[in-house]
Order: sequence, then structure tokens, then C-alpha cells
Amino acid sequence: MTYELYYWDGIQGRGAFVRLVLEDAGASYRDVAREPGGTEKMTAFLEGKHGHQIPFAPPFLKDGDRVISHVANILRHLGPKLNLAPAGEDARSFAHGLQLTIADFVTEIHDTHHPLGMDAYYEDQKDEAKMRSRRFIQSRLPKFMGYFEKILSASPTGPTHLVGNETSYVDLSLFQVVEGLRYAFPNAMRDVETDWPAVAALAEAVKKRPNIWAYLQSDRRPAFNESGIFRHYPELDLDR
Amino acid sequence: MTYELYYWDGIQGRGAFVRLVLEDAGASYRDVAREPGGTEKMTAFLEGKHGHQIPFAPPFLKDGDRVISHVANILRHLGPKLNLAPAGEDARSFAHGLQLTIADFVTEIHDTHHPLGMDAYYEDQKDEAKMRSRRFIQSRLPKFMGYFEKILSASPTGPTHLVGNETSYVDLSLFQVVEGLRYAFPNAMRDVETDWPAVAALAEAVKKRPNIWAYLQSDRRPAFNESGIFRHYPELDLDR
Repeated sequence: MTYELYYWDGIQGRGAFVRLVLEDAGASYRDVAREPGGTEKMTAFLEGKHGHQIPFAPPFLKDGDRVISHVANILRHLGPKLNLAPAGEDARSFAHGLQLTIADFVTEIHDTHHPLGMDAYYEDQKDEAKMRSRRFIQSRLPKFMGYFEKILSASPTGPTHLVGNETSYVDLSLFQVVEGLRYAFPNAMRDVETDWPAVAALAEAVKKRPNIWAYLQSDRRPAFNESGIFRHYPELDLDR
Repeated sequence: MTYELYYWDGIQGRGAFVRLVLEDAGASYRDVAREPGGTEKMTAFLEGKHGHQIPFAPPFLKDGDRVISHVANILRHLGPKLNLAPAGEDARSFAHGLQLTIADFVTEIHDTHHPLGMDAYYEDQKDEAKMRSRRFIQSRLPKFMGYFEKILSASPTGPTHLVGNETSYVDLSLFQVVEGLRYAFPNAMRDVETDWPAVAALAEAVKKRPNIWAYLQSDRRPAFNESGIFRHYPELDLDR
């Protein structure tokens, strides 16, 4: 069984959350749009040339005949198959809710550099991006990070995992968010270890998982850059 | 079995998507935060006083011992139980993907009046809201509405439903979005019947479902207002 992931070449973006899960599990997959001619193959799905279940946008995953859209939906599907989801419907629906909170967080992170909409260039909304980023760093960043810290602290199986007592796809996703935020807002994130110690410890533990560590060093992992979700514009970060 | 819905009193907001499903199915439910002392009961969950599965924000649903967060997660759970979901895992995951696209659409609609973030007043971001709304009406509104029109047109069971050949929770949610957009942007939405006829027909059909029709006339349905997601600020709409 080889999974087919469809996501833009050249950025981590929302595809990164799926790639991390496939890599951690050592699953066999193709990153189709990164192959020669792959972007055209991806576009064909978006144009409805492969059945009526047309995705709104990448990423989407092809698993046999099934096409599954949206990161959280993909991970809900892959998690149990790849042994990266908790057992039981109750824990799985909690995990899915956490993943949807991460999705909202990611959208707000994206909007720090595109508050007026994604159809205009960053350069044309720089002043507004500064205002939105200031508010993000002041109130939304601690709200979301504090939430995940609270979930970890409240966990009946200890603060090592967001759900259950083994690593799940939600842990991998939170790691990705922490990595991305450290790239985008290094100054604002400098005190993450002291402010949100359980989150920081989780991110560190995920990074050291052998398959994740190997993946991060490989060229299968695109670098962070200023075309993705997490962008480093020093003018949007806190002053040192 | 009485479901307990927890969502802010006084607005439709994201709670409306859950309320519509419960009402259409004639399910027994309590709209807890609209009862006396209910907001405190809701807040207790957010403060972690009811177990470790703490919701990030309302709406959340209590079904027996389970607490389920996020609209799409709630509807994925309720749909099959209330006979408002298609049969089969494949169609259900497609329906969930559509619901997540609606969730993204709703966030973008919200951001038309709060482009600089939800922690500041509309009055303090009016100019930016005008810019974002102009772009929304020009490019994002037709992109999303055109997408749902395409899904309806491509459906192998005809353009009456987004998934399968019976009404599902996704149809009810799309109806809510159309209703909200007509309230918020009446001028921009004036040509909905000609531009997106299948979407308009679906919204009309949902509105005439007996339980929905009765609900819309009842005082269980909060009115649209300028505290919710869909806000009517004439300065953000197209000129007549």
C-alpha cells in the first residue's frame, strides 16, 4: 500500500502535518507534486478530472480509491492505520478536536502576515501585518500555547502526550507548530521553555524520535521559507 | 437521551450549525448556556472543572459522558445518529471534508469584519475591514460559492444534495452560510440565484423543511446581529 500525498512543492505549509505522520510511521508514500509533472497531476484533481469528490485545496491524500481532504480529516484517517492515534472512539474524537484547534491556530499564524487576505502580497499589507502580529503575540499566541500546556498538565497519563500514553499524530502536529513559530517569531518564542515547559518538552521529544530526526535532516523535508505559513519577517516579531 | 449543547447565548455564531442539525432531526436537547445560570456551567468546562478533555472554545456537545469540541467534529458525531449523514465511511469522510471547507469559509467571513484580530473592536479596524471585505467579495466569496456549486453539479445523484441522495448535515450548514451571507452582504449576494443556482436551490429546499421552517420562526433561533459571525455593516457590502 503506497499512499499518495498531494501538496504544493517547495513549502512545508499544511502538507507538513501529513508528511510528519507518514515519515514517523515509516509508511510507503509518494509526495506526488514533488515528482516531475506532479503539479499537473494534483491540479487535475482540483479541476474535477478524477471523480466528483473534488478537494477544495491541497493537501489531500489518495489511499487506494479514496481521496481525503483537509489535514485534520487525513490525520483522523491515517492515525489509527499508522499506529499514531489513541484507542477508542472517545479518545479519538478528543484527538480530532485538538487537531482542529491546531488548524485554527495555524490559520491565525498565517493571517499574521496576510491580515487583508491571501490574494494580496505581503508587501502590500505590511502595516496591517505588523498590527495583527503584535496582537497575535500579545494575546493569541499565549492563549493557544497556554491551552496546550493546560491539556498536557491535565492529562491523566502524564504530561508527555496530548492524548493517551503514546505518541499520536496530534503530538507530531504540535511539534510542527512549535518549530514553525520558532522560525517565524524567534524573539517572541524565546521563553517558550519557561512559559510552556510541557509543550517545549513534547516538541523536544518528538524531534528526537528516530524517524522524525532522520526526516528533518533529509531533503524530503522542505526548508521553512517566506512562501509558507510560518514566515520569518523580523519586523513582525518582538524587538530583541 | 437528551443532548447538551454549550454555546454562547444571544448569537447564532458557530452554534447555529449544531442547532440546525438538532432541530431538523427533532432531537431532544438542551441549549445549556441559554438557560438561567447556563453560561457559568459552560465556563466550568472551559476552566477544566469537568475532566481533562477541556474544550478550547464553544460550541461543544455533551452526549452522555462524552464532550465533543468543534462544529465539524460534533456534526461528524451527530450526523449518523440523527440520520443526517450519508452511509459508508467513504461518503462520510467526503462530507467531513466539505464541512471543514465550510469551517474555513466561516472563518474568512468572520475575518471580513475583524482582519486585525478578534481582540480589538470593529470600530478600531474599520478601514482594514473595508479592504478585506472588498477582496473577500471579489475573490474569496465566488471561489467558495463556486466550489459548492461545482460539487453539487458534479454529484452523481443529482444537484439536490452535496453528498448522497438525502439531506445531510452538510446541506444544513451550507444553508446557514447562505442565510448569513445574505444578511451580511445583501448587495454582494443579490445575484446568488443566477451565479450559483444549485446552491440557491439547496438553501431554499433546506429552509422549507418542516422542522427547519418551524425553528426559524421560533424564539429558539437567535436573530442575526452584529455580535455574531455574519454581521451587516453596510459599509463593508457592495454599493447598490
